[in-house]
Amino acid sequence: MGLVTLLTDFGLSDSYVAELRGVVLSAAPGIGLVDITHAITPGDVRAAAYVLGRSWHHFPAGTVHLAIVDPGVGTPRAALALSARGHYLVGPDNGIFTNVLRDLPVEIVALPVPAAAAPTFHGRDLFAPAAAALACGTPLQSLGPAFTGMPERLATAEPRYEGKSVVGEVIYVDRFGTLVTNLTTEQVPSYATLEVEDLELGPLRRTFADVPVGGLLAYLGSDGAVEIAVRNGSAARRLGLGVGGQVRVRLASKR
Amino acid sequence: MGLVTLLTDFGLSDSYVAELRGVVLSAAPGIGLVDITHAITPGDVRAAAYVLGRSWHHFPAGTVHLAIVDPGVGTPRAALALSARGHYLVGPDNGIFTNVLRDLPVEIVALPVPAAAAPTFHGRDLFAPAAAALACGTPLQSLGPAFTGMPERLATAEPRYEGKSVVGEVIYVDRFGTLVTNLTTEQVPSYATLEVEDLELGPLRRTFADVPVGGLLAYLGSDGAVEIAVRNGSAARRLGLGVGGQVRVRLASKR
Amino acid sequence: MGLVTLLTDFGLSDSYVAELRGVVLSAAPGIGLVDITHAITPGDVRAAAYVLGRSWHHFPAGTVHLAIVDPGVGTPRAALALSARGHYLVGPDNGIFTNVLRDLPVEIVALPVPAAAAPTFHGRDLFAPAAAALACGTPLQSLGPAFTGMPERLATAEPRYEGKSVVGEVIYVDRFGTLVTNLTTEQVPSYATLEVEDLELGPLRRTFADVPVGGLLAYLGSDGAVEIAVRNGSAARRLGLGVGGQVRVRLASKR
Repeated sequence: MGLVTLLTDFGLSDSYVAELRGVVLSAAPGIGLVDITHAITPGDVRAAAYVLGRSWHHFPAGTVHLAIVDPGVGTPRAALALSARGHYLVGPDNGIFTNVLRDLPVEIVALPVPAAAAPTFHGRDLFAPAAAALACGTPLQSLGPAFTGMPERLATAEPRYEGKSVVGEVIYVDRFGTLVTNLTTEQVPSYATLEVEDLELGPLRRTFADVPVGGLLAYLGSDGAVEIAVRNGSAARRLGLGVGGQVRVRLASKR
Repeated sequence: MGLVTLLTDFGLSDSYVAELRGVVLSAAPGIGLVDITHAITPGDVRAAAYVLGRSWHHFPAGTVHLAIVDPGVGTPRAALALSARGHYLVGPDNGIFTNVLRDLPVEIVALPVPAAAAPTFHGRDLFAPAAAALACGTPLQSLGPAFTGMPERLATAEPRYEGKSVVGEVIYVDRFGTLVTNLTTEQVPSYATLEVEDLELGPLRRTFADVPVGGLLAYLGSDGAVEIAVRNGSAARRLGLGVGGQVRVRLASKR
Repeated sequence: MGLVTLLTDFGLSDSYVAELRGVVLSAAPGIGLVDITHAITPGDVRAAAYVLGRSWHHFPAGTVHLAIVDPGVGTPRAALALSARGHYLVGPDNGIFTNVLRDLPVEIVALPVPAAAAPTFHGRDLFAPAAAALACGTPLQSLGPAFTGMPERLATAEPRYEGKSVVGEVIYVDRFGTLVTNLTTEQVPSYATLEVEDLELGPLRRTFADVPVGGLLAYLGSDGAVEIAVRNGSAARRLGLGVGGQVRVRLASKR
């Protein structure tokens, strides 16, 4: 019995997710359906790429990941199914797979649009049937012709050097108000100190308990990126920062 | 292994949905549980009927749909289980099945209230056990006596003719701010133009890409109804319209 | 095929719940995953304990309940796995099991922290693998040494007598605005009347239909506690009351 994960920006109030689920379960009876999330802000492909990138590899090989944040539905953007590291991924060619693809070898096919597909709901009529077929063991190659172009990738901001500092930025904010940055331990050696909005955060900590309740800290997050949090609070609210906010790593003392 | 879908207005914060799930899984081990939604506005039977009506038929035959938006719990409203097109549906007799029933031949039984049922939680103590029994293969007829009345149906507004126009109305607003109307292509011939709040929308479009980003459009939605949307935006917010808002179809030019 | 339930304060927007699900499904293929809720207010162990206490016993024996509201992650708080009434429960030792434990005989082990666990995400790296192991039939005792201390329990307010009254308090507010109190029928004999914010509610009613639409009522809720509701409305909004709000039971007439 295979698994199909679902990631969309459909929300959980309307019928759209249920329609996807029904289509998959009708075509692939007995399949296990698992939500990644349906609460991506409408059209926020970047957040979708981040959440998908953190999640997919925790599932067992053979899992099919159906990822539908598709503001370009109805435009000529391609529809893709791909295999990477023994997983399958299905969704629009708009950058949603950026954090999955990285440098992985992948095999990609272009999915044709079924004649009867609603031109505003490819999730249900094009992508879900493809995911169900893969979950049933249909070979990737039989779903469409090889995709010969390069799949879209979102531009990602790289940390930049500024004198004796590295300047990174916030790439995601979670429900706790934790700020995930594009910095890794490569840019933050143990002797460095972090600064955000002119506040000193000190060196990277190991975990929340290294500061008092209510204290700000930076630490290596559970996905390998530097994160900034308030212990039992919200760094986003405390600092007034969101995606794009700057985080400075001082590699030498201030003076 | 059968399927039971769940549609409620219980929300996802409290224990109520989990209690339903536990009761069904205890009585029907190995069953597949699938959410339609739990985010119906408390007591909004009309929205529940719409979402159920769009969803149920996408699931495989034999699925049991448990639909609990039940502001009348504790009143003498009947409790129903019915079969239609090879599916089963279970819920209160308050109109929630309006969009399922239409003209389908159905078989309906009235579910007795178990003596031990909490008088404020028939979802858990009356409807869930009935759904579990159906999912396990218990025949519909053995759950209660035939329901001899007519099941409740919500009154639905029909589009009305006004000179050389047809006036329809918004019957549902989704999370994207898309306005679903009670108009179908029957009332909107290809030469007609649509108007809402004195704004010309032009003819029915095929999909979002037929207007620029930010543009308003009307199109035939994925469930067969005319919808009004803003490409990559919210028509509800743009127009300040909600359920009951008027949409005019001009069958002849304005002058 | 076993069941694992999930209760967290992770919300449904980020990747955290999906990461848990992936880890469990990778270690325990074919397991059934069921959500209790992920919408606990961040760090609200008391609400988590209440929701878990209402839900767990509705699931079949053998179910593993993974409960992660863990504001103390990174502190030396213990990590527990326990068995009670044929169920397993896994989570931090912070009081989250208060409403499960009551006077039940339990067996408890302390889970060691895996060397590779992210110090900020024990849910994924410590608790989820333990839950998956239990779901696969690994004996509790093999997951860690017996926990020799007493597990944390949250202090609970008991109703207090004040002359010819009993004063209870609100312990939980649900999405409908219903106020769940710490009063049971023991403290509310049939001749008593209830009062809240100087409003007379009369005696305990049986169900919503015992008052007109919009009316306030007190009744014995579906989990055995006295609740206060507005029929088809919100008592929390009407009364401006939340957790900790007082509810008075008059055992004799006012004068």
